[in-house]
Amino acid sequence: MKKSVGAKTIVHPTPAFVVATYDKAGRANAMTAAWGGICCSVPPCVAVALRKATYTFGNILERKAFTVNIASERHVAAVDYFGIVSGKTEDKFAATGLTPVKSDLVDAPLIDEFPFVLECRLLQSLEIGLHTQFIGEILDIKAEPSVLGEGGIPDIEKVKPILFAPEDRYYWGVGAKLGKAFSLGLTYRK
Amino acid sequence: MKKSVGAKTIVHPTPAFVVATYDKAGRANAMTAAWGGICCSVPPCVAVALRKATYTFGNILERKAFTVNIASERHVAAVDYFGIVSGKTEDKFAATGLTPVKSDLVDAPLIDEFPFVLECRLLQSLEIGLHTQFIGEILDIKAEPSVLGEGGIPDIEKVKPILFAPEDRYYWGVGAKLGKAFSLGLTYRK
Repeated sequence: MKKSVGAKTIVHPTPAFVVATYDKAGRANAMTAAWGGICCSVPPCVAVALRKATYTFGNILERKAFTVNIASERHVAAVDYFGIVSGKTEDKFAATGLTPVKSDLVDAPLIDEFPFVLECRLLQSLEIGLHTQFIGEILDIKAEPSVLGEGGIPDIEKVKPILFAPEDRYYWGVGAKLGKAFSLGLTYRK
Repeated sequence: MKKSVGAKTIVHPTPAFVVATYDKAGRANAMTAAWGGICCSVPPCVAVALRKATYTFGNILERKAFTVNIASERHVAAVDYFGIVSGKTEDKFAATGLTPVKSDLVDAPLIDEFPFVLECRLLQSLEIGLHTQFIGEILDIKAEPSVLGEGGIPDIEKVKPILFAPEDRYYWGVGAKLGKAFSLGLTYRK
């Protein structure tokens, strides 16, 4: 018998996306966002939900662009730092020593040290409540050759991405391969 | 130097949410959706993006409600099956032997065997392209007592959720604990 836990924002997994933007003055900023995910296949789109209070919020509206940077486990402290402090008062790239590189497609920076990055132009914004959702059309993905697998696309086993567990706010890595989709389930088919 | 990979829907991680609904006739259905995530803290909301062609699409519009069911690793074959066949032609609960239980809060079923479930009322729908995004307000979470951790909320280590890797469509489990959020990053703080 299931128990009521309350109206909480807990799902598994949530990501630890790093959203990178430029401010009005052209200074690069990055913040971590666990509220987001892919939201359309055609056109390819990703959603990130941010509070109005964040520096990134204004930057996205100003530049109509952002990048979603996927970090590896070894960057977990920097990812966490990006979620602790505000770009209003701190230069997060200077503090972490990470390198913002201008995208050649959108008006936003890529984080050079991270394994892969989605370059997005702002397609829609949707005010929901405390959070506003920004929907970005993915114009390209730029990836380190070292994390590419078969078909020349990022391979989760090489990327070693970071997951976030909202219930107690710990970061986790990816574990064992469980099986192939569109295949395992055929056992139930008549 | 990063390489262009193309405009693809790849992020890490994506979830393997199981969206459960009732159809017009009151028959329970479930489908797997990797395009989604939490999208607001206040009110607590979760987004799932579905194609118009799915049976669930019509069910959500009809009932203005859905549940997001988080499965454990041991349910991976059923989760995959829910993503392979359509509720238009198949009774997926009968085929898998899983049990739909009517929510006492929303007009949608909970999957009894899964560790925890978000009960959602439809708040907004947003047509993006091939996918339409449904934003559900989380009215409650119902969870198995066996997966609750400290504070009486679902613990990712007990839940053992399923991740989906879009690049080659494999399912993965959760791995090692990497550290505490809002803590690891303090090392970079001046």
